[in-house]
Amino acid sequence: MKDLESLSATQAIKALAKREIKATNLLLSCLDRIGQKESIVKAWASLGKENALSRARALDKGAFQGLLHGLPIGVKDLYDTYDLPTSYGSPIYANNYPSADAVSVALMRQAGGIILGKTVTTEFATFKSGVTTNPHHSKHTPGGSSSGSAAAVADFMVPLATGSQTAGSIIRPASFCGIVGFKPSFGKVSIAGIKSLSITLDTMGCFGRTIEDVGLGVAAMSGDHRLAKIEALHNKPRIAICKTSNWSLANKETATALAVARHAAEIISKGAVADQKLPKTCDGLAQAQSRIMLSEMSRSLAFEHFHYPKKLSAQLSKQLIEGAQISYEQYAKDLQFANRARASMAELFSNEIDILIAPSATGEAPNIKDGTGDPIFCRGWTLLGLPCININMGNGPNGLPVGIQLIAGLGKDHFLLSAARAFALALPDPVLRDQA
Amino acid sequence: MKDLESLSATQAIKALAKREIKATNLLLSCLDRIGQKESIVKAWASLGKENALSRARALDKGAFQGLLHGLPIGVKDLYDTYDLPTSYGSPIYANNYPSADAVSVALMRQAGGIILGKTVTTEFATFKSGVTTNPHHSKHTPGGSSSGSAAAVADFMVPLATGSQTAGSIIRPASFCGIVGFKPSFGKVSIAGIKSLSITLDTMGCFGRTIEDVGLGVAAMSGDHRLAKIEALHNKPRIAICKTSNWSLANKETATALAVARHAAEIISKGAVADQKLPKTCDGLAQAQSRIMLSEMSRSLAFEHFHYPKKLSAQLSKQLIEGAQISYEQYAKDLQFANRARASMAELFSNEIDILIAPSATGEAPNIKDGTGDPIFCRGWTLLGLPCININMGNGPNGLPVGIQLIAGLGKDHFLLSAARAFALALPDPVLRDQA
Repeated sequence: MKDLESLSATQAIKALAKREIKATNLLLSCLDRIGQKESIVKAWASLGKENALSRARALDKGAFQGLLHGLPIGVKDLYDTYDLPTSYGSPIYANNYPSADAVSVALMRQAGGIILGKTVTTEFATFKSGVTTNPHHSKHTPGGSSSGSAAAVADFMVPLATGSQTAGSIIRPASFCGIVGFKPSFGKVSIAGIKSLSITLDTMGCFGRTIEDVGLGVAAMSGDHRLAKIEALHNKPRIAICKTSNWSLANKETATALAVARHAAEIISKGAVADQKLPKTCDGLAQAQSRIMLSEMSRSLAFEHFHYPKKLSAQLSKQLIEGAQISYEQYAKDLQFANRARASMAELFSNEIDILIAPSATGEAPNIKDGTGDPIFCRGWTLLGLPCININMGNGPNGLPVGIQLIAGLGKDHFLLSAARAFALALPDPVLRDQA
Repeated sequence: MKDLESLSATQAIKALAKREIKATNLLLSCLDRIGQKESIVKAWASLGKENALSRARALDKGAFQGLLHGLPIGVKDLYDTYDLPTSYGSPIYANNYPSADAVSVALMRQAGGIILGKTVTTEFATFKSGVTTNPHHSKHTPGGSSSGSAAAVADFMVPLATGSQTAGSIIRPASFCGIVGFKPSFGKVSIAGIKSLSITLDTMGCFGRTIEDVGLGVAAMSGDHRLAKIEALHNKPRIAICKTSNWSLANKETATALAVARHAAEIISKGAVADQKLPKTCDGLAQAQSRIMLSEMSRSLAFEHFHYPKKLSAQLSKQLIEGAQISYEQYAKDLQFANRARASMAELFSNEIDILIAPSATGEAPNIKDGTGDPIFCRGWTLLGLPCININMGNGPNGLPVGIQLIAGLGKDHFLLSAARAFALALPDPVLRDQA
């Protein structure tokens, strides 16, 4: 029973399916860990200990329920849950009890998952930090907006937790916390029952400590159970490095991570791993993403802005006003630009490249006083809707994790998982290979 | 003050802006009409009379709020409202009070709209009828799923009401009730805060008695205020008739409506109005739509299916089981098919055609005992995501309305409104021309 909390989701599920371990004991181990660490890490907005325990007991007695049978899961507090309060990171919703689960949460429960609690999100998944700290160093941010989910998984409080990305809210915290974060293709996981920021950008995904685990999580969240089984690569993939037009913002440790990534990629790739520039049609991606997000936010949060202006942070209020000042013409132009950029990326992925490797963040996690970090290296990929996965590449000068992201063509989620596993297995450090 | 309820939304707004009429009096006229007719038509799931009146009084005293200043609006009971119960047409949610408005509802209120009440929807916008009757004949269905909204607008209870279409739930009831129904391009109006059936298909739109009115409605719902002003056509559009591969299901009255539509189209079109077959890539559109809808429904309603199986209708339960039996492989294949079909329609609309004219429904509204009618002539257009507008073409053999729909390329919502107005002005019957 000792150290059950350190099992990966996939390891735990295998043991649970064979009834070698009990869901109850796994849950108690996670609760123990939370008891030890929560006062520092502050990953949880709420815990549903009693409900989770009675569910675990029922699962231990009953028939095998599916992909997530008996697995304790953290759910970002942006997702509705019928049995736990759902605050969206805002005091406006401090006493909000939704009448139903978000669709993806219902699917995880249907697959036997145990929702242990809600994890801290920044205010409406925007930029005002929550209380969560980085498990590797409490003076540093875990990243945002999926702060609590990333920290809880990195700190062995749960093996799996959900996230959402509108700018960089899955890949960045995964990078800062040194775990695997998976943002599948746009639209793969239903957004129903999740507080909307931007209908063009909001993408649901999850965090785990291994690549298999995030495949398992998204398999359950989406209903595409094929993702729970990672296939071996049939052919050597064509891999390139994409430093992006924001490369000047990358710190040294990110450059090092990318250099190590190139070496690992060479081992598994078809031919040399060259640098790849994005097509001209993608110039200004991050700026367009930022304008689309702000413009849509000003509409998505119109209710809150009208009824509870004083309960919004000054930072968010300012952004809502800024967003409302973007003309619909500009917004429509940005959407058209995004469509052209997506089409040119579809061509690139079909003709030249299978996998791109790019920075996940500017570098290590910044000091918590300086916010949740810059999503600049994620904005463009989110707007393109492409599936992305963060892989930890080891530590930077402050001893904090640094990740890179692997990116595949739209809808190639299953292939991305296969490529990521092959890539992780080619990493020089055995500890890093454990992600595979 | 007499007959204010018969003003179109656009007429009312103009008079309200000039303070020629009072929002309070317009609202009272609508409430009078509801008082007279509701016992037969049964369009309303709930009314918020007191809130609406106090809002109207405040608007009469205050500054001009925007596009919908002082306009009473019906909201389909699939949309969340913070001040009115929201049942989604299901006993499961009989006592559901959402904590916020759906995004589109918040935007309508922000524009000065007065939410008068919630209109009857079929069960979760699927096929089990609500109680609403067709205002033209109470033994006939108003169509579904946006039954109450279509009936309320047709019966002069409100000038404007919201709807949603997953199969044919805006265009079909608009056709059956003899009004204008506008399903804009997929994604134009945020789906946030609306009970989700199918993330690939759910499309929000509205009903009015004129083309200008539905443009105004979607302008407010989406934030694209350009739609509130219909431009004159710059060039004669290329128009064709598309009977679709389901033409054998059309009744005589639909054939007549299409023949009349062809004549009107000839007047405004560039060249002859020929018949247009859809590209081969679109073969099987309706079947794919149906499978995608069922498959996604089985996930979207997983929460309700698990927690409240006995509160679902037998019909819906059966569909959820059917949907769950569709393999994810089949579903993924259907999504890929849809993407190819969309791409070929984009080519067709860019190279050959500006407007397609197609049946809205098989014919007049069926007897209410026989359900809400067949969405077969809408399924394909919904899956394609194209903007559609229903125009009333007069009455069939039972004296009930028959409509046709005009369809434009993706994102050409503004142009569709212009073309629809030019088309309606070319109709032979002066009463029908009033839609323009």
